[in-house]
Amino acid sequence: MLETPTSTAAGPSTWTRKDLLDTDTLTRPEIDLILETARAMREVRMRPVSKVSTLRGTTIATLFYEQSTRTRASFEVAGKALGADVVNLTASGSSVEKGETLIDTVRTLEAIGTDIIVMRHHRSGAPYLAALHTGASIINGGDGTHAHPTQALLDLFTMLQHLGSLEGRKVVIVGDILHSRVARSNLWTLTAMGARVVLCGPATLLPRWLPPRCEGPGSCSVSTSLDAAIEGADVVMALRMQKERQERGLIPSLREYIAGYQVNAARLARANPGALVMHPGPMNEGIELSPEVAHGAQSLVEEQVANGVAVRMALLYLIAARSRA
Amino acid sequence: MLETPTSTAAGPSTWTRKDLLDTDTLTRPEIDLILETARAMREVRMRPVSKVSTLRGTTIATLFYEQSTRTRASFEVAGKALGADVVNLTASGSSVEKGETLIDTVRTLEAIGTDIIVMRHHRSGAPYLAALHTGASIINGGDGTHAHPTQALLDLFTMLQHLGSLEGRKVVIVGDILHSRVARSNLWTLTAMGARVVLCGPATLLPRWLPPRCEGPGSCSVSTSLDAAIEGADVVMALRMQKERQERGLIPSLREYIAGYQVNAARLARANPGALVMHPGPMNEGIELSPEVAHGAQSLVEEQVANGVAVRMALLYLIAARSRA
Amino acid sequence: MLETPTSTAAGPSTWTRKDLLDTDTLTRPEIDLILETARAMREVRMRPVSKVSTLRGTTIATLFYEQSTRTRASFEVAGKALGADVVNLTASGSSVEKGETLIDTVRTLEAIGTDIIVMRHHRSGAPYLAALHTGASIINGGDGTHAHPTQALLDLFTMLQHLGSLEGRKVVIVGDILHSRVARSNLWTLTAMGARVVLCGPATLLPRWLPPRCEGPGSCSVSTSLDAAIEGADVVMALRMQKERQERGLIPSLREYIAGYQVNAARLARANPGALVMHPGPMNEGIELSPEVAHGAQSLVEEQVANGVAVRMALLYLIAARSRA
Repeated sequence: MLETPTSTAAGPSTWTRKDLLDTDTLTRPEIDLILETARAMREVRMRPVSKVSTLRGTTIATLFYEQSTRTRASFEVAGKALGADVVNLTASGSSVEKGETLIDTVRTLEAIGTDIIVMRHHRSGAPYLAALHTGASIINGGDGTHAHPTQALLDLFTMLQHLGSLEGRKVVIVGDILHSRVARSNLWTLTAMGARVVLCGPATLLPRWLPPRCEGPGSCSVSTSLDAAIEGADVVMALRMQKERQERGLIPSLREYIAGYQVNAARLARANPGALVMHPGPMNEGIELSPEVAHGAQSLVEEQVANGVAVRMALLYLIAARSRA
Repeated sequence: MLETPTSTAAGPSTWTRKDLLDTDTLTRPEIDLILETARAMREVRMRPVSKVSTLRGTTIATLFYEQSTRTRASFEVAGKALGADVVNLTASGSSVEKGETLIDTVRTLEAIGTDIIVMRHHRSGAPYLAALHTGASIINGGDGTHAHPTQALLDLFTMLQHLGSLEGRKVVIVGDILHSRVARSNLWTLTAMGARVVLCGPATLLPRWLPPRCEGPGSCSVSTSLDAAIEGADVVMALRMQKERQERGLIPSLREYIAGYQVNAARLARANPGALVMHPGPMNEGIELSPEVAHGAQSLVEEQVANGVAVRMALLYLIAARSRA
Repeated sequence: MLETPTSTAAGPSTWTRKDLLDTDTLTRPEIDLILETARAMREVRMRPVSKVSTLRGTTIATLFYEQSTRTRASFEVAGKALGADVVNLTASGSSVEKGETLIDTVRTLEAIGTDIIVMRHHRSGAPYLAALHTGASIINGGDGTHAHPTQALLDLFTMLQHLGSLEGRKVVIVGDILHSRVARSNLWTLTAMGARVVLCGPATLLPRWLPPRCEGPGSCSVSTSLDAAIEGADVVMALRMQKERQERGLIPSLREYIAGYQVNAARLARANPGALVMHPGPMNEGIELSPEVAHGAQSLVEEQVANGVAVRMALLYLIAARSRA
């Protein structure tokens, strides 16, 4: 029945988690297993008929309390490419508007036969609450300002495809670090893989919680100067700037943000030759990245999206295989 | 092709209805056929690969003019578990906003090849109008304050799994009976199966239409005292209290409603030992049911949801098989 | 693998277009190929199991920036009837609300593995912009007041089923020609097939761009009198009247519009015996068509909808087969 080769992995028996809530507790062998499985899934997606029937009979629900095109569609395509049935639920158009609690909602989804719930919620921690109260698996598709583990894993997958290893590599994440679930989840995986991470942004948008040295084999530090931080960088990841930050006074103006923190050709020239440019999307083109960088040869933005399907297929597969075992 | 055994039923030839609009005209053999088919479907859902291809090539449309998580998702999962294609339509995001009439909408759905339309509408009777004007089958997924036949059938299925028979059993339905399509549809099936039904609630929320003795082998009566009605009950079904009832002055306050009509441990102790506690969901926990009852050993709330998929599979199967004959 | 016969067509190799944006550049052999393929698809839809697996592994996204029941659902049913996976995206509930550009959206859809994007947009020309910036195929499902090619092709298919040929036939299109993407796209196909097209409506709703003689073997002209234009017509196609036209002063009142331009029994009697009555839907019954004409023997409104699925299957098939070649 199993059409996707995973025998070269450390073995499917090594995946034992019911849920994927963040990357912080993932062990190195677990990360390697996800990446290895994602490589097999990427190969499936390259075939003329790019789907398999491995998860026939598995039901996946997407439960999005925040809007999204790419994450929701990416999971839907990933699920269907594995032969699963996918049911989409959004906050508007659901019992949520009748005041049903999150706990009741996920229990109802479990009761109708949902195996995996992919959930996005505006409250940090909501998927953890959900996971405690249902036997269905919860995959966190982004919760508040807390975590976005599948984004971090697809970012990691993409970097490794180009760099082979992150050991000692310098990765600059620039933008609104303070509110970024993408930055948080990336920090765990990148340091676990030995990268030197620099979190860069205006002082008002940098977190106060950062320990002098992060956990993991890698290191992390903060910087308020992109011009300084980008020196010798192997990867520059720009984060989306929410327009409401300006309204709340956290940045003086978009113009000043651009002046100090936009990744443009002049700044990119200070990074290592061929440094990778990444963005979780959707981009505000001309703000976080200049147009020539956004669409330049070093930009991996679309590759990130494509890899996202493979990484999500891998996670759906690993979690579903576990729940069937 | 047919992978689900129904040969032990009175025979598939006994199902001849194009539509399922309410439970009031269902004969006892029809109810038995639905229940028997639902048992076969429940068995399908228990399998490791919990779907079949019986309805491959059948198109089911869900047409919801009112929001819903559980009913819509339940039908979608049920359809997909039978191998059908499911197309979701909601009132927002459809021609409905362009002023298209209900009749034109269902005719359009029929013309694009829809075999079965699952419809929820805020107007009582709307599915009847639709059924008259289309060759597609209409399943009523709830219409105004009138009927919710699949809820009543899943409630019946759930009760019978625990009680074996309803002959002479006392079933108390408590809450806003006046506006409840769930109560109405349950009344027909429960009395047809021989139950003694007590409709219980504040006088302002009890219907005026109730005959002194209901039709069917069973009986029905009304009561304004839950403390009295619950004595010797085998089943207590609490209905959802809409917050707008209070605003409209039909109940003095939620606090007083809770005082008189919440199913809590003290009241439940007056029912028969092991009496079943049910709720159609979504629950206002702490209003209709106290938390310890809602999540207690006697609560069947999640079992109802799970059985809903099996009962809806049964109805989709019976109706589709008829339309193919 | 290919389960639908197209060998009698000019050969699948004759379809080379990545996109279907309008009918204006379609050659006669291309139109014939679409029609021939649609006839094969109509046969598939007549089978007891009305779907095939030809497009298994193909992903189709519907990207609708304007509401629609029939067009979106028609494409979804068409895609599923060919075994494709269909992902639905609407403007609300997507990154569009985050300000993502159309170009980024279609590139994202391509990157997650979408083969064909069916797109409706309120801006004329938007699908052309999209098509330039993605390797995915774009099918225009209606753009502003510009084009609606699949509607024109299903209209043509329907007329030919009844008339055999349009050579020299008189086709009257009546209503708000000025703002009608349906009229525009029909004009190209109808004149290409040799029809004599009369565009009829109040002077305020007729275009100013019309050349004295249209391109194609057929001809076209304008008329402000339906009573005159309908004389000897073989087909009368009424367009939807948007209520906002009245508010903007383009028609004095709906009552006067009806007096001059409603297709009713008296007017239809002046057309050729058995003249075909068509409408792209959704109808404002009693405005564009009188009720007895809308539901009379000459009305093809529901046949148009049914043929729409076959024509869209044909287009999805031809485009997908090309992209796999």
